[in-house]
Amino acid sequence: MNFIEIIDFLGIIAFAISGALAAFSKKLDPFGIVIIAFVTAAGGGTLRDVLIGVQPISWMRNMNLIYTILACVVITFIFRAQLAKLRKTLFLFDAIGIGLYTVVGLEMGLAAGLHPLICIIIGCITACFGGVLRDILINEIPVIFRKNIYATACIIGGMVYFILLKFNLPNNIVFTASAVTVILTRVLAVVFKIKLPSPYSKNEIINK
Amino acid sequence: MNFIEIIDFLGIIAFAISGALAAFSKKLDPFGIVIIAFVTAAGGGTLRDVLIGVQPISWMRNMNLIYTILACVVITFIFRAQLAKLRKTLFLFDAIGIGLYTVVGLEMGLAAGLHPLICIIIGCITACFGGVLRDILINEIPVIFRKNIYATACIIGGMVYFILLKFNLPNNIVFTASAVTVILTRVLAVVFKIKLPSPYSKNEIINK
Amino acid sequence: MNFIEIIDFLGIIAFAISGALAAFSKKLDPFGIVIIAFVTAAGGGTLRDVLIGVQPISWMRNMNLIYTILACVVITFIFRAQLAKLRKTLFLFDAIGIGLYTVVGLEMGLAAGLHPLICIIIGCITACFGGVLRDILINEIPVIFRKNIYATACIIGGMVYFILLKFNLPNNIVFTASAVTVILTRVLAVVFKIKLPSPYSKNEIINK
Repeated sequence: MNFIEIIDFLGIIAFAISGALAAFSKKLDPFGIVIIAFVTAAGGGTLRDVLIGVQPISWMRNMNLIYTILACVVITFIFRAQLAKLRKTLFLFDAIGIGLYTVVGLEMGLAAGLHPLICIIIGCITACFGGVLRDILINEIPVIFRKNIYATACIIGGMVYFILLKFNLPNNIVFTASAVTVILTRVLAVVFKIKLPSPYSKNEIINK
Repeated sequence: MNFIEIIDFLGIIAFAISGALAAFSKKLDPFGIVIIAFVTAAGGGTLRDVLIGVQPISWMRNMNLIYTILACVVITFIFRAQLAKLRKTLFLFDAIGIGLYTVVGLEMGLAAGLHPLICIIIGCITACFGGVLRDILINEIPVIFRKNIYATACIIGGMVYFILLKFNLPNNIVFTASAVTVILTRVLAVVFKIKLPSPYSKNEIINK
Repeated sequence: MNFIEIIDFLGIIAFAISGALAAFSKKLDPFGIVIIAFVTAAGGGTLRDVLIGVQPISWMRNMNLIYTILACVVITFIFRAQLAKLRKTLFLFDAIGIGLYTVVGLEMGLAAGLHPLICIIIGCITACFGGVLRDILINEIPVIFRKNIYATACIIGGMVYFILLKFNLPNNIVFTASAVTVILTRVLAVVFKIKLPSPYSKNEIINK
């Protein structure tokens, strides 16, 4: 298991727990919980693989992914009393998930010989699409459109990745720094309620 | 035409009629009816082919599928007075559709050399995704999230398929038994209002 | 740059502006505007490439597309005061976009050796899917389901394409005539409020 596989594995755990928590909070039945956990953990990677043209889709030959997701659902269920403040826990696991998946997407884009700008788009898709599907399925406004810094965190992490790569740092450090940047950007933006600057003048917003 | 092609063909008919009935009940225009029938009949197979990496997508080289869907729309339109109780008829054709498509998905997963558990997921996707798209497009809550046994019926049918396969029964019998299991499970669950057991304690549900 | 690439390029501009205008009208933040412009311009082509099995997806090796979309967003932003009647401008750019993309889809379907009927479906998907995604993301009813002539315009344009092809006219003329047919059909249908004939008797509609 190389470093990128470990990051991918941790991302699966973070997103499967995030999906299961979201499904629990909506009181879905056992089967619905597994579907939501699976879609959250595998959705972004599936779209990435389809777009890059990776065959087979990563989860189709990877039974460990399936078992990991099932285990995460069971563990989340058992400890749901301890995870009492579901919203905060869900938020944290989601932030960790997008950090790890951004790096996996960047790495796979580079391996496919794509332009850095396209790699950053692929990183964003890998990180954000599973959460978007999760929110659509449980009937919440997709997190990406809730007007706070989410995909932007992935883009900033992607830029850090390519800047550090120029300095010929070891891969493990580049990966880690990039993922930590995404997670910190996301967490700090929510904690300090930082928003992107509005491109509209005050008049335009009032007139709306 | 081999046995699996016949099952696929019957599935197309069942889903095209189910899609056309749903579109009629919403008073869509002629073009909208054809789109909904097409998406219902071809949606699940399209996602399956994209995920497995089958090229070309099944309906792109198969004019019979297109003509069959158009014929189903016309026939459904002519007999819509006889199909008076639209909801019940729609429900029945949808149940037949998921039974037949589950088997087609299982078979194609096996042919691609996938693990039985992945084959069952592929069977579910083939069976359920067209109906989910149909419901999203006509603005109904997707049938798969209406908290009754739907995808679960496909999973049970998939398990029956792999159990019977172990006994070296002829393929035709395994196919038929598996499809019938899905259809019966779905119909009986709705008729007798059987639901999946809730994983939550009474307190948790009340507190919601 | 051949004729079809020029048409594709003009289509990207039309749809990127249409997406940016729609995002401005919803007061999205800068990042949201770029996402919507990108999805509107690249969504239909992405689904087309996935279905036909074209690898890599067109925008993944085409940095010009990315830069064009970014430039369109900036230009649209600067001239948004001049584009005061956003709804009408948006409608016009959307109509131009579906005309141009229909032809691109038809051409790529033919190049893949597909049946004319399938080519017309591919043309429709290329033209309509980006706008559908745009409308879903900004939370409008998808334009294709608003009960007026939209995808129908693409189908009529596709039929004109294959009829003119039979007369061995030069490709540029066939392309142009087909795109103009789509745009005119769409614009005239909206201006004169032309709808598809209803397949239902008056009684059925009243009883609804």
